[in-house]
Amino acid sequence: MSENLIGNCLVAQSGGPTSVINSTLAGVVTEALKHEDYIEEIYGGRNGIQGITNEEFVNLAEESQLVIRGLRYTPGPALGSCRFKLKKQEDYDRVLKVFEAHNIRYFFYIGGNDSQDTSLKIHEAAVAKGQPLRVIGLPKTMDNDLPITDHCPGYGSVIKYVATTIRELACDHSGMGNHDLISIVEVMGRTAGWVAAGASLAKRKDHPHDPPHIILMPEIAFNPQKFVADVQNVLKSEKFCMVVASEGLVDENGNYVTASTKRDAFGHVAFGGGGNAEYLRDILEKETGIGAKITKLGYAQRAAAHCSSKTDSDEAFASGVAAVQAAIKGESGKMVTLLRADSSDYKCETGLASLSEIANQVKPFPSQWVNEDGISLNYQFHKYATPLIAGEVQVPFENGLPNFVRISSAKVEKKLGESQTV
Amino acid sequence: MSENLIGNCLVAQSGGPTSVINSTLAGVVTEALKHEDYIEEIYGGRNGIQGITNEEFVNLAEESQLVIRGLRYTPGPALGSCRFKLKKQEDYDRVLKVFEAHNIRYFFYIGGNDSQDTSLKIHEAAVAKGQPLRVIGLPKTMDNDLPITDHCPGYGSVIKYVATTIRELACDHSGMGNHDLISIVEVMGRTAGWVAAGASLAKRKDHPHDPPHIILMPEIAFNPQKFVADVQNVLKSEKFCMVVASEGLVDENGNYVTASTKRDAFGHVAFGGGGNAEYLRDILEKETGIGAKITKLGYAQRAAAHCSSKTDSDEAFASGVAAVQAAIKGESGKMVTLLRADSSDYKCETGLASLSEIANQVKPFPSQWVNEDGISLNYQFHKYATPLIAGEVQVPFENGLPNFVRISSAKVEKKLGESQTV
Repeated sequence: MSENLIGNCLVAQSGGPTSVINSTLAGVVTEALKHEDYIEEIYGGRNGIQGITNEEFVNLAEESQLVIRGLRYTPGPALGSCRFKLKKQEDYDRVLKVFEAHNIRYFFYIGGNDSQDTSLKIHEAAVAKGQPLRVIGLPKTMDNDLPITDHCPGYGSVIKYVATTIRELACDHSGMGNHDLISIVEVMGRTAGWVAAGASLAKRKDHPHDPPHIILMPEIAFNPQKFVADVQNVLKSEKFCMVVASEGLVDENGNYVTASTKRDAFGHVAFGGGGNAEYLRDILEKETGIGAKITKLGYAQRAAAHCSSKTDSDEAFASGVAAVQAAIKGESGKMVTLLRADSSDYKCETGLASLSEIANQVKPFPSQWVNEDGISLNYQFHKYATPLIAGEVQVPFENGLPNFVRISSAKVEKKLGESQTV
Repeated sequence: MSENLIGNCLVAQSGGPTSVINSTLAGVVTEALKHEDYIEEIYGGRNGIQGITNEEFVNLAEESQLVIRGLRYTPGPALGSCRFKLKKQEDYDRVLKVFEAHNIRYFFYIGGNDSQDTSLKIHEAAVAKGQPLRVIGLPKTMDNDLPITDHCPGYGSVIKYVATTIRELACDHSGMGNHDLISIVEVMGRTAGWVAAGASLAKRKDHPHDPPHIILMPEIAFNPQKFVADVQNVLKSEKFCMVVASEGLVDENGNYVTASTKRDAFGHVAFGGGGNAEYLRDILEKETGIGAKITKLGYAQRAAAHCSSKTDSDEAFASGVAAVQAAIKGESGKMVTLLRADSSDYKCETGLASLSEIANQVKPFPSQWVNEDGISLNYQFHKYATPLIAGEVQVPFENGLPNFVRISSAKVEKKLGESQTV
């Protein structure tokens, strides 16, 4: 046990949200409340690191227990998020100045690769300056591409929603199979095929004819000739052909098949719902004369709390709890990880990894999980992914629609005066 | 009470499915089983009228009770559907010949406008020929455009799913509102804006800022200048702008803004997931420089049983029951309708209307339900639509995914030998 560090804690959210991002927030708040000997005020930072530099804090302890419980099934970043990168040393100095002014000694940042890098740099800046601060990163990304952790909170829910949709479309299409029907479902994933792969869970056990029939991932170079041949091959034996395509397909030279020059704040190529589905449809129409129906689940994927995984939501909550416990014990510069037990039944515990091993790293999709045909996943992937979608979160409905919560607690008074634009 | 007509019954499905199309089928089968003095065998017709002409029947009474119960939450046409129009007198003669060969005296056809026309003509052909047959049409269309009936089974579920998605996207987007964010959600509706209008239910009571901010329907001529101005106006006061667009938008001359020359078997312009969202995005990008995120729910809308309305599913089932009861009582050439009681609480009963008043007719969206701004719906629409999404169908999940049923009962032996192509 390290020295007792007494002060306020701050939790914030960053990057694209998931269906369970607020479950992690609820875990942090719930656990922080239990440690009044260490943690005095529980602040929520509005709009990620961007809001933090402007002292945009709310007092989360003021929120009702109903709201904190409601966070466990409310999608979107309840505190507000940002896509913003601190650039200069002065930016980090500003953050530390804000933290000092508000006596913030515990900082929990819920985010993906880029956000873990932000957490690492804030940790390092505090160490360099000798400012007492414990920084713990919380994993959050439906992309499932953070290293070390077995999987990321948010992933199980997005693939549960996508696989549910595929299974429903299977019922729809199999009854309409009087003629050739090609269905293209475009899913998120600009650099990795984790989400597209998850669609394969829709196949029922011992039903090899079940869709999806073709899964296209960024990891497998897209070849139009092979694609057309694969579709034609499926239509020989099936009533319809369902294609699940990642939004980021690349050709054999590694270039996106639908080139876009736009980049987001982090320099990533920006996808606006993508154009892959239309690209694929046009290829098929030209080569086979058969049209295709398009479904683009877009941001609905990362917000579909009504179809989120209980396992995922519970693990997201547990991550938040573990982060607070680790910080209390003196840890800093770490990210909470999920560790899968080497047992026949699925068991998952939380662990810790150094942020320096995680920041800006990307976990590639294991190539050995893709079958030789390049368009389907094998048993190893199913074994990995199936437990992650287990169980259903019970979202309360009111008047026929999900009743989500909002954070409305009072703003914390600013101490540094004027906002500063970093 | 008319004469006792004893024989077999046949139920079949036609056109595009809905989330609750099989609930109607379950209602027919459940009720038919109770009338063994009238109805001997309960046949299901595979692939609509197209399969019927080829004697593609299964014996539904052989299905387990579990399967019949499972039909109440299984999307897609469990019997198979078709988009097929009988053309010549010989086609109707063939249907009557098939019916006579299998002693079919009761015919229940679940479908939309075109299918009700098919039912009407089969009824008329039987009357002309003096062949004992009772024909009852069952309403089914997520488009909600059948006349006389207050609403159509399938509509409540699609708008529950769409409004749920909008509400989730609202949580997502409101947390990402550090910069201008335009979100375009394309929904079904090629000639009527019923589904797009339903998205407005996502607005919480007394929260006028809630999305959707702009609803585009085929009934309101699309004007690009007004559209851009409307979006800019929303972005002045809101963190983001959510647009819900029907797939069939028309200009002031009544032409589709994204022209397509393809037509389906009924001569309708075919939409393959539509291109409206991209069209709107491109306009906005050109005029405002702001990109837009696209979500196209596609066929997922009509298959999303996991988010279907209990009210809708129950009414679909009740329609099936009412159809059998009406036929037993001697009715023919009628369609089951849903009648809303003139009471403060929502109450709905089934009625009957003549197929001749329904076939090929379309119920327009009431223009007085659209506000003067042309992009939002008023209280009258909300009063109409809100009860239709009430309650949640409990779909059983197994291993994390919905466990739908399939009809697998044995084929009925053909009596007329060779298939006939009509």
